[in-house]
Amino acid sequence: MSEHVIDTVLRIRVEHRPGQLARLTNTIAEAGGLIGDISTINVGETATLRDVTIETIDEEQTMRVVTCIGAIDGVEVMETTDRVFEAHRGGKLHSTSRVHLDQLADMRSIYTPGVARVSRAIVDDASRAWELTSIGNSVGIFTNGSRVLGLGNIGPLASMPVMEGKAVLYDELVDISATPVLIDTLDPMEFVDTVMRISHTFGGIHLEDIRIPDCYAIEDELRRLLRKPVMHDDQHGTATVTLAAVINACRITDRDLKRSRAGMIGLGAAGSAIAKLAVSYGVGEVLVADTSADAVRRVAAAGAIASDMDTIMAEADIVIAATGCPGLIDPRAVRKGQVIFALTNPKPEIFPSDARGAGAAFAGDGRSINNALAFPGLFRGALQARSSAITTGMLIAAAETIAALAAPGDVVPSCLDRGVHQAVAKTVFETATRIGLAGTAIL
Amino acid sequence: MSEHVIDTVLRIRVEHRPGQLARLTNTIAEAGGLIGDISTINVGETATLRDVTIETIDEEQTMRVVTCIGAIDGVEVMETTDRVFEAHRGGKLHSTSRVHLDQLADMRSIYTPGVARVSRAIVDDASRAWELTSIGNSVGIFTNGSRVLGLGNIGPLASMPVMEGKAVLYDELVDISATPVLIDTLDPMEFVDTVMRISHTFGGIHLEDIRIPDCYAIEDELRRLLRKPVMHDDQHGTATVTLAAVINACRITDRDLKRSRAGMIGLGAAGSAIAKLAVSYGVGEVLVADTSADAVRRVAAAGAIASDMDTIMAEADIVIAATGCPGLIDPRAVRKGQVIFALTNPKPEIFPSDARGAGAAFAGDGRSINNALAFPGLFRGALQARSSAITTGMLIAAAETIAALAAPGDVVPSCLDRGVHQAVAKTVFETATRIGLAGTAIL
Repeated sequence: MSEHVIDTVLRIRVEHRPGQLARLTNTIAEAGGLIGDISTINVGETATLRDVTIETIDEEQTMRVVTCIGAIDGVEVMETTDRVFEAHRGGKLHSTSRVHLDQLADMRSIYTPGVARVSRAIVDDASRAWELTSIGNSVGIFTNGSRVLGLGNIGPLASMPVMEGKAVLYDELVDISATPVLIDTLDPMEFVDTVMRISHTFGGIHLEDIRIPDCYAIEDELRRLLRKPVMHDDQHGTATVTLAAVINACRITDRDLKRSRAGMIGLGAAGSAIAKLAVSYGVGEVLVADTSADAVRRVAAAGAIASDMDTIMAEADIVIAATGCPGLIDPRAVRKGQVIFALTNPKPEIFPSDARGAGAAFAGDGRSINNALAFPGLFRGALQARSSAITTGMLIAAAETIAALAAPGDVVPSCLDRGVHQAVAKTVFETATRIGLAGTAIL
Repeated sequence: MSEHVIDTVLRIRVEHRPGQLARLTNTIAEAGGLIGDISTINVGETATLRDVTIETIDEEQTMRVVTCIGAIDGVEVMETTDRVFEAHRGGKLHSTSRVHLDQLADMRSIYTPGVARVSRAIVDDASRAWELTSIGNSVGIFTNGSRVLGLGNIGPLASMPVMEGKAVLYDELVDISATPVLIDTLDPMEFVDTVMRISHTFGGIHLEDIRIPDCYAIEDELRRLLRKPVMHDDQHGTATVTLAAVINACRITDRDLKRSRAGMIGLGAAGSAIAKLAVSYGVGEVLVADTSADAVRRVAAAGAIASDMDTIMAEADIVIAATGCPGLIDPRAVRKGQVIFALTNPKPEIFPSDARGAGAAFAGDGRSINNALAFPGLFRGALQARSSAITTGMLIAAAETIAALAAPGDVVPSCLDRGVHQAVAKTVFETATRIGLAGTAIL
């Protein structure tokens, strides 16, 4: 049950013969590939040209599928295109002009001499930068590449495709102008210094893919120093979406979350933030377990209860695992009626089907917890409110909004639904206003 | 002869009466405004609605024009719009997705899980970042706002409109993705440290509006440390366009530049670079003058001859002034047949008409020296060649190309002519290739 993560488009020439397409699809299936779209490019005198998208587990399997297809009599693979690499060619991001530059008059407006008057207006009143520059609608995405996806410490340069992906989501989902900034240091305080020195450039500071425990010190320090939204997405974005999913899982299984006992196994960046947010939300009891005593101590200080995995499996009504250890949870440990979210990607601590087979009332994996549901609306709402921070109250409001917009039976809505992001932004904006943070940001 | 730098659009309701438009235009002229476009918005039963663009010297004059118009019987100013501030509303820049995000398959390609394979490809071979990220087509525009236009040290935030203007030019003129980075320090080595820490983010480093002498140390150090194009535009962009203009002024006045004596008055960032580039180009003799002995010493070390303003006015065939002192040059000091460029904005050291009246064979001011003619093509060519530097040879090649594309009688072409920027990029690319720098950049 591995994930078929590689999409390859094969341009295939198939000679006209009865049963050729069946032979083709059988061959792909036998070689282990899944079939996506099939589209006809051209029907010629003797052959048809088709684009067939195949999904495979790895490059090796792709090669195998291509070889097997080529061995069919009357079938030829003309071209193979890796969809992912194709989508990345030339990069995914471009800093684009919002104004026209056709005439000399445009030049005089947006550049010298006109621009000097705009700069002078900001010198006289710094708050005019909100209306007269792009800063107020911008987010800097800062990383040092020290913990990227499942890849570990790959450094800043190789993390750029991930950061560009985040920026694409900001632009596409909430029209925020987001800019990756790759910081070449593993020293947390140098990281903080660097962000501080260029922080005027951005309305919000999005921290991404920074290893633990550095990410905690970096976020704490930047929150302390800056009067603008700062958020480490791997912590709080993930925690927000997980809380939304747990709220709905409890609804589906008819459980009162605030009177339940939850257990968090694995206190990395995501797990720690999930446990803390659950405490803030008011979950009855939050047990936590990790191999690192430091991590347990840190989260216990926020109101969670130090525990261990066996106890959590035996006693918790809701189990969330984010350990990075595939298959960690033995199905025999599952308690009847438990709600289980096993978040490790791509292979979870326990497959949902196995958990349900062992008696879980509800089971989900990391695919249901897409943090792209949270961070765009969180920053959008905070920037629109000119809030000096993203608070726990905003995270909870966002989680409740996300939960409320899931279709019946689902734990979260689609992250491509723009309406969800608008609703999250709205609730964050309203929360900022209610708690008196609106208008407190400083660029 | 002040510049009318403020464009205001007045929406004016004019009652139908004979001679009303004449009264209106007379009134604007009498109040000191110039008239730009006049467009008819609506012709009603009793009145016509028109948008009239007026150009004024300052806001006070605009107010005066509006008041005088309002005093005309049967004429009413309904609305006034400042074109410059209008163009800046919401900022001039947006970080935009180059890919589509419509389906889950798009998400899987540009974000997780697909993006992990792209990051891994860059881990295996860092040079693949050229093709798989936006970095290779990007420029970071770095400033601390310590010397912005004629405004002086206004700090990073207020300099943003200027930086966004530069980025707009990059996008519009040569399709480079340029990102302003505002650095909050006046310490040159802290500036260098900050750029170094985030330099992976960009293919090229554009330095902008940094005071002297800090700009020299910053540029020198970054050139030494980085294997990618680094250029302080106030120095080398300006020098390149000035050289182009001087080449053409000599052509127009039938003078052999390489056998001429040139004099540079004012050795700020621009003046120093102009003098050095003139030396490198092979101008017969380059005399230089400045109130700062340090500045003179620095430029003399590059092959110029220390001199003074009186000597330059008396002996130089070509005089270039970039002093920041309007009216510095007495027309009586002009030598017959001299070529004079007085670059201080908005009021030059000597008005071209006065210089010509005093016998100059050719006279120009700062309006002819738009460095937007140089920097876009310089970086485009250097990035396309993957050159590890922008060299003096590239600046000279760019200057010759710009000069060659001016219309007969003009000293430079229009900076809105995209063909000019393509030609500059091409000659820079070819120079990089010829001198063996192509392919030497490291991201």
